[in-house]
Amino acid sequence: MIRFDSDYLEGAYPKILKKLVEINYEQEPGYGKDKYSKSAENKIRKALNCDNVDVHFLVGGTQTNMTVISSILRSYQSVICADTGHINVHETGAIESFGNKVMTAKNHDGKINARQIQELVEEQRNYDLPEHLVMPKLVFVSLPTECGTNYTKEELKEVYDYCKENDLYLYIDGARLGYGLVAKDTDIKMEDLPELCDVFYIGGTKCGALFGEAVVIINDKLKKDFRYYMKQRGAMLAKGKLLGIQFDVLFENDLYFKICKQAVELALKIKEAAIEKGYKLYFNSFTNQQFIIMPNTKLKSLEKDFAFFKWQKYDEKNTVIRICTSWATTEENVNKLIEKL
Amino acid sequence: MIRFDSDYLEGAYPKILKKLVEINYEQEPGYGKDKYSKSAENKIRKALNCDNVDVHFLVGGTQTNMTVISSILRSYQSVICADTGHINVHETGAIESFGNKVMTAKNHDGKINARQIQELVEEQRNYDLPEHLVMPKLVFVSLPTECGTNYTKEELKEVYDYCKENDLYLYIDGARLGYGLVAKDTDIKMEDLPELCDVFYIGGTKCGALFGEAVVIINDKLKKDFRYYMKQRGAMLAKGKLLGIQFDVLFENDLYFKICKQAVELALKIKEAAIEKGYKLYFNSFTNQQFIIMPNTKLKSLEKDFAFFKWQKYDEKNTVIRICTSWATTEENVNKLIEKL
Amino acid sequence: MIRFDSDYLEGAYPKILKKLVEINYEQEPGYGKDKYSKSAENKIRKALNCDNVDVHFLVGGTQTNMTVISSILRSYQSVICADTGHINVHETGAIESFGNKVMTAKNHDGKINARQIQELVEEQRNYDLPEHLVMPKLVFVSLPTECGTNYTKEELKEVYDYCKENDLYLYIDGARLGYGLVAKDTDIKMEDLPELCDVFYIGGTKCGALFGEAVVIINDKLKKDFRYYMKQRGAMLAKGKLLGIQFDVLFENDLYFKICKQAVELALKIKEAAIEKGYKLYFNSFTNQQFIIMPNTKLKSLEKDFAFFKWQKYDEKNTVIRICTSWATTEENVNKLIEKL
Amino acid sequence: MIRFDSDYLEGAYPKILKKLVEINYEQEPGYGKDKYSKSAENKIRKALNCDNVDVHFLVGGTQTNMTVISSILRSYQSVICADTGHINVHETGAIESFGNKVMTAKNHDGKINARQIQELVEEQRNYDLPEHLVMPKLVFVSLPTECGTNYTKEELKEVYDYCKENDLYLYIDGARLGYGLVAKDTDIKMEDLPELCDVFYIGGTKCGALFGEAVVIINDKLKKDFRYYMKQRGAMLAKGKLLGIQFDVLFENDLYFKICKQAVELALKIKEAAIEKGYKLYFNSFTNQQFIIMPNTKLKSLEKDFAFFKWQKYDEKNTVIRICTSWATTEENVNKLIEKL
Repeated sequence: MIRFDSDYLEGAYPKILKKLVEINYEQEPGYGKDKYSKSAENKIRKALNCDNVDVHFLVGGTQTNMTVISSILRSYQSVICADTGHINVHETGAIESFGNKVMTAKNHDGKINARQIQELVEEQRNYDLPEHLVMPKLVFVSLPTECGTNYTKEELKEVYDYCKENDLYLYIDGARLGYGLVAKDTDIKMEDLPELCDVFYIGGTKCGALFGEAVVIINDKLKKDFRYYMKQRGAMLAKGKLLGIQFDVLFENDLYFKICKQAVELALKIKEAAIEKGYKLYFNSFTNQQFIIMPNTKLKSLEKDFAFFKWQKYDEKNTVIRICTSWATTEENVNKLIEKL
Repeated sequence: MIRFDSDYLEGAYPKILKKLVEINYEQEPGYGKDKYSKSAENKIRKALNCDNVDVHFLVGGTQTNMTVISSILRSYQSVICADTGHINVHETGAIESFGNKVMTAKNHDGKINARQIQELVEEQRNYDLPEHLVMPKLVFVSLPTECGTNYTKEELKEVYDYCKENDLYLYIDGARLGYGLVAKDTDIKMEDLPELCDVFYIGGTKCGALFGEAVVIINDKLKKDFRYYMKQRGAMLAKGKLLGIQFDVLFENDLYFKICKQAVELALKIKEAAIEKGYKLYFNSFTNQQFIIMPNTKLKSLEKDFAFFKWQKYDEKNTVIRICTSWATTEENVNKLIEKL
Repeated sequence: MIRFDSDYLEGAYPKILKKLVEINYEQEPGYGKDKYSKSAENKIRKALNCDNVDVHFLVGGTQTNMTVISSILRSYQSVICADTGHINVHETGAIESFGNKVMTAKNHDGKINARQIQELVEEQRNYDLPEHLVMPKLVFVSLPTECGTNYTKEELKEVYDYCKENDLYLYIDGARLGYGLVAKDTDIKMEDLPELCDVFYIGGTKCGALFGEAVVIINDKLKKDFRYYMKQRGAMLAKGKLLGIQFDVLFENDLYFKICKQAVELALKIKEAAIEKGYKLYFNSFTNQQFIIMPNTKLKSLEKDFAFFKWQKYDEKNTVIRICTSWATTEENVNKLIEKL
Repeated sequence: MIRFDSDYLEGAYPKILKKLVEINYEQEPGYGKDKYSKSAENKIRKALNCDNVDVHFLVGGTQTNMTVISSILRSYQSVICADTGHINVHETGAIESFGNKVMTAKNHDGKINARQIQELVEEQRNYDLPEHLVMPKLVFVSLPTECGTNYTKEELKEVYDYCKENDLYLYIDGARLGYGLVAKDTDIKMEDLPELCDVFYIGGTKCGALFGEAVVIINDKLKKDFRYYMKQRGAMLAKGKLLGIQFDVLFENDLYFKICKQAVELALKIKEAAIEKGYKLYFNSFTNQQFIIMPNTKLKSLEKDFAFFKWQKYDEKNTVIRICTSWATTEENVNKLIEKL
């Protein structure tokens, strides 16, 4: 069985494991105060070409979203996201469990735009009794989106400009940031991000690490006391050096982007083969996730050798499947899949 | 200025005030343990023709919704309601502030049906990783709805049957219950309610009382420790007799329904006059709330003498206004309005 | 049976009921935007000799405490109070239910002092990993305390000075404020309060109103968006004029303090009689609550004619009872009690 | 610098890292559904000699405590623990942030007893208005305690018997379980635990793993839907096999206890040397944590070569220091410390 159902099936990029073995006996203070975390923080600042950001390392994506968002909002404020947003659909209501409403706008291939945000904001602000309505205060977008698509720099800037002009914050979920930034459907570069949002995170779990997400806080107003939230939400790893060393390796010589680029190339190879063989795509993704509309009979046959994630029913005879590649995907396995497609 | 903008503009039905004055010096224990609350509880049981229900008196509608709903749900469970549901739009996210997601289905004139609930429930139950999704556990409907419309007995039974068969609870928000049950677009009677839901409340604030809502818990599973939730949410009035005496008066000789019936008759008089004069209705309501599509120029002129609630913009030239009647509305004022319509 | 077990046994001072009857048919907008609320706000500002405060009317004490405190604190911050503080013992964990820890210091007759607060604050600030500990941010004191005692101006100033110098807020629970301010064991006057804390409330429920508490926000930082919290916590009464009119009556010609003074005088008459007859006091109160150590045999005999609140067991043979007076207590009933003591 | 300040300074027992490297390329499903987690679950069941328990793997201690406790309690219920309990002092109010009050009893060397629990429970149950008080529902003890001490089987049984007889649950925090169970001041064995509590966890982070805690749910009532809580609290690791493989190694051939035993022996060697040299102990611990009262001048000198955790000030001239050993502590370093003591 060759699995393409997610990008967190294997362990970590080998160099990370090698480093973990190397430093195993080194004694380092806990909770992110170790030298590897400091080094990784600085490498990330350098990759962003921006000194004035706070960097914190957390363990997983849901944890990161709930910690960041609950640190920003008061109970009567909401976060706006696409109806397909991860916080809206696949985090068991973690945001609500901390007291905040998730407001949704209809996604366009996973994305929302400034006009949609404006509508939600103005509906509240223009209401006669505004305090009877939840106040939108934060916008959540994913880069790339849950559908594998990307915002262009102009699209994202438009969203952020609206936020800044209207006293909202913008948070980018970068669970698959590396795969997004190397894709050809966006012109956003890593060093653009400090100008494009208030806070974002760099996904490690799905991009080469065993686990780990790096939160980057740009807006000074959001920096204070963030470590209190981390500790309170169970998001401050005792052996913080495990997170530090992983990001330290990933941000040495652009390894993070090299790994992701290679995975995206293999994903695109599958995509092109699928198109060539006459399959229709459900989303037009240029990242490591590909969404193919597959006849159920064909799917059944493929599933003897391959595992996919069933995204959703397309119609009575077809299913949308999601195919993921990662740092560990081999060209050999990709070829085997293409052959059987 | 004659106001029709809400049904809570005046105080209370005079007999209630009279009783409050009469018992002012009587010493009664607090927190709902007074003799008037006991008496009112029993009258409500009698009106329901059902001895085996718990009755609790709270102060207001948002308070009642948040107390009841948070007493039922665990943090990973959600309440399903119409997108127009009061808890979804006009309670400042009170439900989320206690940790629960509000899931919505598109309303049909304020109502949702069993099939829509089923879709939301099955989406979660059939998902590969169901614990990544919030689990629907409670259905919230309003009777009458926020749009002034009613469920028929068959419609509500269908919803409740689905709930019972699928391990969900059904809660009815009866902020305007009296106006709903006397309307001609439903065949539901007061004594049917114990068979049609797990818990509901009888609205007092909008139906003749100074304030107060009577929660009726039918399902034994939801009865335990409800008073703890009341006290914790600030919903246990110290001088509980103030609530008891009001419902005691309202449920003496069907006063509650007589008051509501009279208000509905006046609302229908306005409705009929509006139709006759060529206005279009936004919702076809048979209760005390009427929704009329009104040219902005006409509205401006009417607003010299009358106050309405602007429900929403209809188009560039028209506005949907809401007109409410109550126990205190006089035929004289209704006639004045009709004359100017 | 003559009851002395609490100060919320009866209804309201008659003049309040009279006014409620008078304005019953007047149409006023809801949610605190009526003319009576505006008038009452202004009278309270005048009584405080301070224009620059926000005044909001809520329904009950637990509701007020939970709304105010949760509006001030972030999830990692705590409120410090006496171990006897109402929020710590008698509100079913309402403060914790909104996410905040209640930290306690040992009370001295219901009071805490600046040094105790300092100890708790420094313990956290001096800890090596301060973010592993909850951060004290708010101090809660009751005036008068739950034990019927009062802070002097100097004592309270010392507490507030510490708060201001150390970036903490001070909140005063004034559920029985009127009884406290007329007592001879404090030199605090109503108009001193804006200099002595950041926010406090004026209790109505126990001091002559049917119900109602007036929150006074002094510190500008705490004013913003308070109405959102009120609505979200179910603490914004639909018919807000019911609250407005009550405080409007109470703050006309010092009625609030006149009512409370009379009740305190009757309480002191009982106290003096008790001392004379050889009873020991549990707390030395100069307010409307008196705490007497009573032999169980005597108590049993008294309970044939009178009701008291059993505060706690004193020893095997004695019980601490609490006796309360209110606006409705008559000299005749006090004399009857004294006779039987 | 040789560090003794905590037991999470190094990485993992080498065999664990070796296994992580070995399985790095294996594709396994996420979220704890991999074969290594299954295997580890079964080994733990075997070590407990009990088939009928649920085992779940989480990442860290605070996360585990907050997930378990919030899954058990309703908002009006509290958890009772020693005032020194980790949830009370060192988790930034995580329990309160999910809505529950932490009630404390004064610790005796880190422990509480059944009588203390009974006092808190009866105070609530015997109160006239019990719903005004938080209802104790769960007891939290640590084994070993935060002070390095242990409950005997009789002591723990007494606590659990009280809980069972009075409708409370008992939860054991086993962050350092291995060090506790090998100590000579307790007769509790691993296989006794299913008879001694409702739920507990086996600490990995401090006992040989990189990270990870294994929750064992014994009481059937607490098993349902636990994975929903895990996901919602960000406690469900995407690459769950990382947790599974670590516990699979630790519970192969009793490695977990062998590692802990060796660390405890080295700690006791330090303890005995300290006693011999005339130091006083602050707690009499037989586990891997030792608490020594150290003159400040001596401490200053030792700190040139060694790091300790400063537990607290003892008096003006002395400090209580905590010394920890772990799987990675060498006899050589212990000897160096003893030499300088």
